[in-house]
Amino acid sequence: MRVLIKNGTVVNADGKAKQDLLIESGIIRQIADHISPELPCEVIDADGCYVMPGGVDVHTHFNIDTGMARSCDDFFTGTRAAACGGTTTIIDHMGFGPAGCRLHHQLEVYHGYAAHKAVIDYSFHGVIQHINHAILDEIPMMVDAGISSFKLYLTYQYKLNDDEVLQALRHLHQAGALTTVHPENDAVIHRKRLEFLAAGKTAPKYHALSRPEECEAEAIARMINLAKLSGNAPLYIVHLSNGLGLDYLRLAQARHQPVWVETCPQYLLLDDRCYEREDALNYLLSPPLRNARNNDALWCGISDGAVDVVATDHCTFSHAQRQQLSGGDFSRCPNGLPGVENRLLLLFSHGVMSGRISPERFVALTSATPAKLFGLWPQKGLLAPGADGDIVIIDPRQRTTIRHAELHDNADYSPWEGFACQGAIRQTLSHGRVIYNDGVFSGVAGQGRFLRRKPFSAPTSPVDGSVSPLGQ
Amino acid sequence: MRVLIKNGTVVNADGKAKQDLLIESGIIRQIADHISPELPCEVIDADGCYVMPGGVDVHTHFNIDTGMARSCDDFFTGTRAAACGGTTTIIDHMGFGPAGCRLHHQLEVYHGYAAHKAVIDYSFHGVIQHINHAILDEIPMMVDAGISSFKLYLTYQYKLNDDEVLQALRHLHQAGALTTVHPENDAVIHRKRLEFLAAGKTAPKYHALSRPEECEAEAIARMINLAKLSGNAPLYIVHLSNGLGLDYLRLAQARHQPVWVETCPQYLLLDDRCYEREDALNYLLSPPLRNARNNDALWCGISDGAVDVVATDHCTFSHAQRQQLSGGDFSRCPNGLPGVENRLLLLFSHGVMSGRISPERFVALTSATPAKLFGLWPQKGLLAPGADGDIVIIDPRQRTTIRHAELHDNADYSPWEGFACQGAIRQTLSHGRVIYNDGVFSGVAGQGRFLRRKPFSAPTSPVDGSVSPLGQ
Amino acid sequence: MRVLIKNGTVVNADGKAKQDLLIESGIIRQIADHISPELPCEVIDADGCYVMPGGVDVHTHFNIDTGMARSCDDFFTGTRAAACGGTTTIIDHMGFGPAGCRLHHQLEVYHGYAAHKAVIDYSFHGVIQHINHAILDEIPMMVDAGISSFKLYLTYQYKLNDDEVLQALRHLHQAGALTTVHPENDAVIHRKRLEFLAAGKTAPKYHALSRPEECEAEAIARMINLAKLSGNAPLYIVHLSNGLGLDYLRLAQARHQPVWVETCPQYLLLDDRCYEREDALNYLLSPPLRNARNNDALWCGISDGAVDVVATDHCTFSHAQRQQLSGGDFSRCPNGLPGVENRLLLLFSHGVMSGRISPERFVALTSATPAKLFGLWPQKGLLAPGADGDIVIIDPRQRTTIRHAELHDNADYSPWEGFACQGAIRQTLSHGRVIYNDGVFSGVAGQGRFLRRKPFSAPTSPVDGSVSPLGQ
Amino acid sequence: MRVLIKNGTVVNADGKAKQDLLIESGIIRQIADHISPELPCEVIDADGCYVMPGGVDVHTHFNIDTGMARSCDDFFTGTRAAACGGTTTIIDHMGFGPAGCRLHHQLEVYHGYAAHKAVIDYSFHGVIQHINHAILDEIPMMVDAGISSFKLYLTYQYKLNDDEVLQALRHLHQAGALTTVHPENDAVIHRKRLEFLAAGKTAPKYHALSRPEECEAEAIARMINLAKLSGNAPLYIVHLSNGLGLDYLRLAQARHQPVWVETCPQYLLLDDRCYEREDALNYLLSPPLRNARNNDALWCGISDGAVDVVATDHCTFSHAQRQQLSGGDFSRCPNGLPGVENRLLLLFSHGVMSGRISPERFVALTSATPAKLFGLWPQKGLLAPGADGDIVIIDPRQRTTIRHAELHDNADYSPWEGFACQGAIRQTLSHGRVIYNDGVFSGVAGQGRFLRRKPFSAPTSPVDGSVSPLGQ
Repeated sequence: MRVLIKNGTVVNADGKAKQDLLIESGIIRQIADHISPELPCEVIDADGCYVMPGGVDVHTHFNIDTGMARSCDDFFTGTRAAACGGTTTIIDHMGFGPAGCRLHHQLEVYHGYAAHKAVIDYSFHGVIQHINHAILDEIPMMVDAGISSFKLYLTYQYKLNDDEVLQALRHLHQAGALTTVHPENDAVIHRKRLEFLAAGKTAPKYHALSRPEECEAEAIARMINLAKLSGNAPLYIVHLSNGLGLDYLRLAQARHQPVWVETCPQYLLLDDRCYEREDALNYLLSPPLRNARNNDALWCGISDGAVDVVATDHCTFSHAQRQQLSGGDFSRCPNGLPGVENRLLLLFSHGVMSGRISPERFVALTSATPAKLFGLWPQKGLLAPGADGDIVIIDPRQRTTIRHAELHDNADYSPWEGFACQGAIRQTLSHGRVIYNDGVFSGVAGQGRFLRRKPFSAPTSPVDGSVSPLGQ
Repeated sequence: MRVLIKNGTVVNADGKAKQDLLIESGIIRQIADHISPELPCEVIDADGCYVMPGGVDVHTHFNIDTGMARSCDDFFTGTRAAACGGTTTIIDHMGFGPAGCRLHHQLEVYHGYAAHKAVIDYSFHGVIQHINHAILDEIPMMVDAGISSFKLYLTYQYKLNDDEVLQALRHLHQAGALTTVHPENDAVIHRKRLEFLAAGKTAPKYHALSRPEECEAEAIARMINLAKLSGNAPLYIVHLSNGLGLDYLRLAQARHQPVWVETCPQYLLLDDRCYEREDALNYLLSPPLRNARNNDALWCGISDGAVDVVATDHCTFSHAQRQQLSGGDFSRCPNGLPGVENRLLLLFSHGVMSGRISPERFVALTSATPAKLFGLWPQKGLLAPGADGDIVIIDPRQRTTIRHAELHDNADYSPWEGFACQGAIRQTLSHGRVIYNDGVFSGVAGQGRFLRRKPFSAPTSPVDGSVSPLGQ
Repeated sequence: MRVLIKNGTVVNADGKAKQDLLIESGIIRQIADHISPELPCEVIDADGCYVMPGGVDVHTHFNIDTGMARSCDDFFTGTRAAACGGTTTIIDHMGFGPAGCRLHHQLEVYHGYAAHKAVIDYSFHGVIQHINHAILDEIPMMVDAGISSFKLYLTYQYKLNDDEVLQALRHLHQAGALTTVHPENDAVIHRKRLEFLAAGKTAPKYHALSRPEECEAEAIARMINLAKLSGNAPLYIVHLSNGLGLDYLRLAQARHQPVWVETCPQYLLLDDRCYEREDALNYLLSPPLRNARNNDALWCGISDGAVDVVATDHCTFSHAQRQQLSGGDFSRCPNGLPGVENRLLLLFSHGVMSGRISPERFVALTSATPAKLFGLWPQKGLLAPGADGDIVIIDPRQRTTIRHAELHDNADYSPWEGFACQGAIRQTLSHGRVIYNDGVFSGVAGQGRFLRRKPFSAPTSPVDGSVSPLGQ
Repeated sequence: MRVLIKNGTVVNADGKAKQDLLIESGIIRQIADHISPELPCEVIDADGCYVMPGGVDVHTHFNIDTGMARSCDDFFTGTRAAACGGTTTIIDHMGFGPAGCRLHHQLEVYHGYAAHKAVIDYSFHGVIQHINHAILDEIPMMVDAGISSFKLYLTYQYKLNDDEVLQALRHLHQAGALTTVHPENDAVIHRKRLEFLAAGKTAPKYHALSRPEECEAEAIARMINLAKLSGNAPLYIVHLSNGLGLDYLRLAQARHQPVWVETCPQYLLLDDRCYEREDALNYLLSPPLRNARNNDALWCGISDGAVDVVATDHCTFSHAQRQQLSGGDFSRCPNGLPGVENRLLLLFSHGVMSGRISPERFVALTSATPAKLFGLWPQKGLLAPGADGDIVIIDPRQRTTIRHAELHDNADYSPWEGFACQGAIRQTLSHGRVIYNDGVFSGVAGQGRFLRRKPFSAPTSPVDGSVSPLGQ
């Protein structure tokens, strides 16, 4: 099977050019100014469009059981939505397993979840829910099995304390895994919740008030320093929502520490006025939405390079579930927002089309950098001969208004309802096959492949003199 | 005449409280939790509203003749629009006079412009259009006459070179005047314009491309350092439009240098996509609109305190004028935007109501700080017994959509057409008289008074240990 | 008793002038250009010298029993040394009492320590060694008794966890007390020590390696955020030793958070090369000495205003004690450096005389700001009529080489041995009496008074618009 | 000829290891853990020592005629001193030629100066002393002749104005040349000098006061922005002396602009107290020495990576010349300091041995980065097979006290007299030949070769995603 994409602007993180691109057998074969195929092939005319690496969304929670509820997107509806939004790879965060379970326990569970459902390629992040010798010894085997990143929680049921974090960081680093972390200070949340609940303050806005930005920022600074003290272990901060935390990360970056940070569209474009809406329950997530000054600060980080990745933290609980379980009480409402289908277009419209970032930087944020950090580069996140034929074609001239009714996930609402975007996702290709075309999904459950990820390796660092060109 | 404003939230730059406020004979007499007037008086119920110092807009250009054209708002239509937007004081920048003219020449011209027209209080900034002994000697007399701030231009017909700037700064400082500056590098603009015009590139967007952000940022850094080298002369940067310039100002602030900076709503809320519109000519101003990343950076400065003042640079040329004079060629189109009526509401909606700033900080930005910097404090910019009864009442619960048809200036368009704002200007009082009430202007031409401003005195500085409480 | 100091340059934190200064009955009576006493008085000629407020050293540990050993300076030898170095007030950090003891227990112990020994005025900081209702309820009584600051430890025997810190911060804030903190991450230290000791690495340098700078910086960021989350409780960081921690503090300062920071001469002028010396044990303290790049960073903070206070953390263990107790094993060696006598001169020489800071800033760092923060202003830290006659006279023309043999503490060595300083302490006056004169101590044990300190009140903040000049 | 350096620690900018290094015919042949030469060779035992690339000093002024005087080091005494200090390559700044002269005029003059004198390899920087078509057209020819960097002056006789700078930057950039600049604001200097001289203030300290740090900082910000506006032309700032200028550069670096900055040991280790010495004339240079807070700020830049290069600006005028020409009047005294022999050891001692920087960073600052920026990499600045056998061996265990009597330049004093350094230059090799050995110079005039430098090419930038590993 051969596909030729003609007349588009091929964009990579390091440059762009008006070029044609040929895919054979699911692999990019050629990129050149003008390609006239010698053999028959399907031709896609991308005139006026950007041809970019398919999105790599490294933060989803499909099929997750939080204890409180099970999210209503599984690996079929979740990856279908991703595909329709231009994303061709997801890395899902495994949920907690039974107390004391082995790391492989959850890996098997998740292989079961995904195997016959995923329509695009996928992998999983491991989760460290307790520390003992057995767990620490199991880490290298997980890395061998392609799981080269793990998440730690500083709050929730399986939070780790500082000493456990130190151990986790060191062993993960030694095993070639990247540590990711959900950074919120548990003592703060615990105390604030107690106070609010004791005072009968259960409205949705108290969810946000019980998890203030300093609660998150503190945990970020803590993790940065514990990582440094663990042999300079690499660290990846998920779902950053506030400017102070970003300032802490900037300081670490300035010291050339191997830390990276992800934010999500909701932290850039939504704000805490949502908690005054009638449907405020639909906006509960952790960390919560912040005010517009934090939006501004995060946008500055998107523009100037301080933010590395934009992912979604897609985690769908329907409005019905939320309402029924919580009765309006924030402390009983499951947390999370859907959005895997909207990431690329939102960032394209408000990032590229508003002049904040270049198309190249858009690719870096949405596919190239996450692929590098999570062991998928250069097969993913890059348009070059030999790379997978995972591609999104975006038309900057069209306008799109987001409507839940037109989305492909399993939610009963969208937090992005009514958002007007400059641009449209025209086509998505996975391994050279068109799986989305102008509103029509054409993927197949089970065609997504599990990606056995490479051990962590830091992207080329900015430190000078890092290459000896003459070799030895 | 007595006016009692009841049940509102009285806001000053340093605090707010639900209080009543009584005005007698145009002067605020009392502010207290509950005031029951002993004498008959007009009562305004401000329940649910903010009661704030009337706006002080320190950057307007009424009736200005730029050589290319005369702006179409004079001191009547201009101050009427200001009043209807909640602004009760303006300081207009005198335009250039005939080559070689004395400073007083323009002062007389401007007194003539304003005398029987202004509906709110007003003053003028002087302009230094050339340097010689006579001019330098004349400065102290101007300060005596109430003109305690002067503007320098680094580009346009009467630009000053570095040596002249040094002399101006030193003499203005010694005379008790604040130096303000239009900072753009003339050599850059000159060269870029030549190149564009030689290539036939006359479309509106080339206006912006001929005055890039570094052109402005350079001039800001230059002025900061020349001011420091002129005996630490105080400096005020007008109409900041870019983030790099703000970064330079942050460095100066961190060194405790007496510099202050103004931006305008158009640099916060509009961006250079306007230059791709059909009516792009309507958006030509200098410095030009920038991209969204500069908006973000300026908002950060609004939020964190780096920006001191929000003014308008109101300078109206009608679309008809622009089109006719330029024929679409940016180099022949007069520059400037109207907006004196929209400043408060735009900042209130996008600043206060979006959670970026507090109501107190809103007052600091729109009236208290400009009043302090330009010798009008505490008569203006403060709600306290003894201060002028200049007040704006804002209702945060209403929504306003800006329509040119409902504005009170003399333009034939508004750059803010269709902007939706949370909040509404309910009433404006000048010297205790309601001059605007819910859509209806009730001011009178000629009732505005010329404000003989005090010499410059730096607002309390952040330097530690600055007060000896025991006296000597 | 009357003393007239003539011809000197009188320096306060906010200015300096060549003036005479008259003290009567221990109180400053007059400061004027030329004072001719009407009554007989002692005259001190301070021609060519700086006349400054006596030093306020807010960080000493006299007579402390660390469990491992008792420090060898008591309130006599300690305050004598202070006096000979130009310091006229000390605030000593109470040591830990018996497990579970009341706050007043240690207050009584310390009153006993100081009463008949101190030669200059003194007060104490409380210490929170555990949290329960009784302790929290006792705090306001301590504040009434003049103890308006308390210290928390995040490491050592009585460390507090995050939840306890939150409670302490809130209650101290509500009671009008300033929270001070020893910021080091206990889990990090614990793990590093275990590893070093297990490997037989007991040499002094492993003390430093077991407490890296990120271990301190982490705890600083944590405290900043917990303080913010405790109703914006005021916070004071003691003995800052590293640049990253200072960067975290800068971010908090930029957000106008009420945090202040102290460093000590040893963190400015000594570095970790001391741990390679033969007498390395003499340099063990916590946090440990860092490398020269941290010196540089702290000096930048001294120069640019980010550092608020220079104190000493004076805590004397003799070389003999150190050697005998530890046998060279860092984990068994008591921690601390003497230095109460050297603070002013070291900072004067390397700060003022090297051009880093002005004499005014020197006063702010060494007396005015600490007096303000700890409830002693304006009696201490200020030269003004009505203030206490506590004065140091410094001659900038003399040179001093520090020799332990000439110091007045009870140590058997000085870490500053051989340091050459530009300047000399000429005289120290306490309540108008000369207690030190050119090498000769003339104070008397027991003449120092206990200072019942006022509740905490934040020094005038840099936030604009903070004063309503017209009152209400 | 073969030389084997055994048992040392071979250091490059990107790493170090205990390895042996073999040179054949002047070229490094092999670097390996243990090399047993098959053929006879000279063996140098570097046990305990660092084996580093020979220093590359890109800022010297040998034989320069400033109009006021001719410097007293020529290419023999200058390069001899360099060699004895471990430097094996110099790039000399050509002086001004006759008014209106061609660029090649000075190139020929300098070839004449250097040809039979230099004992180490050398090249020249061009100088743009005026702008016209002929000069602009001549630039590419100079680049072809190996001169790929040019200096602009913003003050002195041949200063360029903004428009000329714009032209120079653009043409140099297009021709593949790096623009270097002497950044000082001419108007400021001119006015300050006039004022001082008019007041009879001619003492050496007025030299410094007439060129304050803001005078330099302003010019740096100006050049940064003009470079950005000239097609993002690469820019190199010479002899940075102040912290504010460095802050401006940090902002540019954060925006990924291609700017680099050099400082010199005198701006790190000497300060303006030198201008109060009896021999103050010996310390006149431009920019002048600053105070200690600027030293601190520059050291922070050395440590954290903001400073790219340490060079010397070696320019020798003897004390006799200075005294005789000036009679003590700063305005008639030639400017410049000797120091080409002291650079490596001063930075090694105060940088590496004090813990501020690693040995790798030392190499980056002193040879690798300057070699890359100025078209000499990887032949210079790197120890790798194929690179030139230019090497310095430094012994960190020895101590050196600098004495003019032991230096090899032609001055009659050293500004570094008496400086104690940890470390010693043990040997210097040029093209594999020992030219300095423990105090003894053994080089030969005329053996240094002119280096025809490559066009400018930016060192690998920190921008993410910059390499497509799969190629196309």
